[in-house]
Amino acid sequence: MIPFEITILGTGSALPTSQRYHTAHVLNVRERFFLIDCGEGTQNQMRKYGVKFSRIEHIFISHLHGDHYFGLIGLITSYLLLGRKTDLHIYSHSMLPDLLKPQIDMMGDELSYKIIWHPLNFKRSEIILDNKVVKVMSIPVQHRFPCCAFLFTEAPSDLNVRKEQLEKYQVPLTQIYNIKKGADYIDQNQQVIPNSELTLPAMKQRSYAFCTDTAFMPELSELFENVDLLYHEATFDKTNQKRAAETYHSTAHQAAQMAKMSNAGHLLIGHFSSRYKNIDKLLNEAREVFENCTAANEGMVIQIPQKRLV
Amino acid sequence: MIPFEITILGTGSALPTSQRYHTAHVLNVRERFFLIDCGEGTQNQMRKYGVKFSRIEHIFISHLHGDHYFGLIGLITSYLLLGRKTDLHIYSHSMLPDLLKPQIDMMGDELSYKIIWHPLNFKRSEIILDNKVVKVMSIPVQHRFPCCAFLFTEAPSDLNVRKEQLEKYQVPLTQIYNIKKGADYIDQNQQVIPNSELTLPAMKQRSYAFCTDTAFMPELSELFENVDLLYHEATFDKTNQKRAAETYHSTAHQAAQMAKMSNAGHLLIGHFSSRYKNIDKLLNEAREVFENCTAANEGMVIQIPQKRLV
Repeated sequence: MIPFEITILGTGSALPTSQRYHTAHVLNVRERFFLIDCGEGTQNQMRKYGVKFSRIEHIFISHLHGDHYFGLIGLITSYLLLGRKTDLHIYSHSMLPDLLKPQIDMMGDELSYKIIWHPLNFKRSEIILDNKVVKVMSIPVQHRFPCCAFLFTEAPSDLNVRKEQLEKYQVPLTQIYNIKKGADYIDQNQQVIPNSELTLPAMKQRSYAFCTDTAFMPELSELFENVDLLYHEATFDKTNQKRAAETYHSTAHQAAQMAKMSNAGHLLIGHFSSRYKNIDKLLNEAREVFENCTAANEGMVIQIPQKRLV
Repeated sequence: MIPFEITILGTGSALPTSQRYHTAHVLNVRERFFLIDCGEGTQNQMRKYGVKFSRIEHIFISHLHGDHYFGLIGLITSYLLLGRKTDLHIYSHSMLPDLLKPQIDMMGDELSYKIIWHPLNFKRSEIILDNKVVKVMSIPVQHRFPCCAFLFTEAPSDLNVRKEQLEKYQVPLTQIYNIKKGADYIDQNQQVIPNSELTLPAMKQRSYAFCTDTAFMPELSELFENVDLLYHEATFDKTNQKRAAETYHSTAHQAAQMAKMSNAGHLLIGHFSSRYKNIDKLLNEAREVFENCTAANEGMVIQIPQKRLV
């Protein structure tokens, strides 16, 4: 199956525990790899869980609290040691290059690869990447420091052709590329054969929303509408809703409300406060509102299957 | 038993592997805690192995390659989140505060505690700390970046008094403090009772040498003479001696030579290149020269027992 797969590397909030690492998710879209947040220890976690470390080309950093970016300098260093040549694109607050500059300068050698820094816009949502496999939108959220959620939408797949129909209409090979892209076929008699007769229904474009470190923002549900997988932070349980609001975090209940309002396919909660030794309480709270909910764990892999549109 | 105990948190060299973390050792001397190097993930490893995280007062950073200090910013941040009040002493190259300054400044809040930076001297050995429990000497070594080894020597213990002798000579309670410190007792008749008649032989002062990221330096053996535990880097095996010399690292064979020349009690090797999936080769190589050798592993705890001088 063509992958659209999320690997969870860290699920804790600011204070790490013996079980939970800081935030980092890896998204594999058709064997292209995207890292979302990069807390301390991310490179170790990638090794541990067999992530294709060297193939990450784009890194998205939601905000500049340490638990979301302290692993970046180690990763940048390891890529240098490994002689990386491929450009590395980093999407973050514009301050990040300055924060890391003294340490990068200290490495002594020139970097063997180029880092291309992309400053995020914290005023409005923007398409920050649109390539062959995925479109990424940054979405400002409400936290103590400027912070963005990210919505990843798979690029449209080529259509699968129906061989028996190609034979029936004697479609020449030269036309197949266009037909896979959605074109109709016009035969020698100028008769139009609509694309729908030549191909199977398209595959649904899969999507993943990563939404961490934010107060509850019901207005985001429009942007997340029908997302296949919503990752939403659930730092606290609902008895700590006041604390959540004060610190610009969300409760498990609120994460589930967001999933429900967005009509998400599946909710994944994480970024758990270190006060919860056992997160069943948070999971149960979320499931009361939105049944199809999973609590994130280090090493968890979630595959979103392809479906045909009907 | 009064502890003099080393906990190993990371044993890898520059590139982390799925099994090995970056360098960090914790030394517990009589329940005072000292951190030596602080690679990425050190705070996670401390949690994992139950190290008394908050009680570390002194951190020693051998040099400014990332695998020896990238975990420091996370630790500094966690101490802030935990409301630490106790001063934190950091011994390192004088550039370290500047490297971390942009990130520390970014934390927004004032730190709840004071960081006291102690620049290391890379020209000659120095006593950098001498308190109630330990004396620490920094020892310049030869690496691509200025680097120090550290020698930890336990402070002399109070002597144990022999109760039957105190009774025999009718020593008043007010004199016991001085006798435990080594004083003779002069009785009412001006007769001198030598301390050795009143106390058991003293405990040997235990010692630990931490020597990482260095070319082989036979001249160090004088400074390490009779050390109880020598940790010496063994990045390579002896077939890679040329590579070791070029990169200012040591082989397992050289680490063992150092232990032998120093008359160390026990050798611990670590900082293994990621090329060695199995480090038996390195361990066997070292044991050929110095039998009492252990290969470091994450979570390993080495207790140095107290012994009386005869």
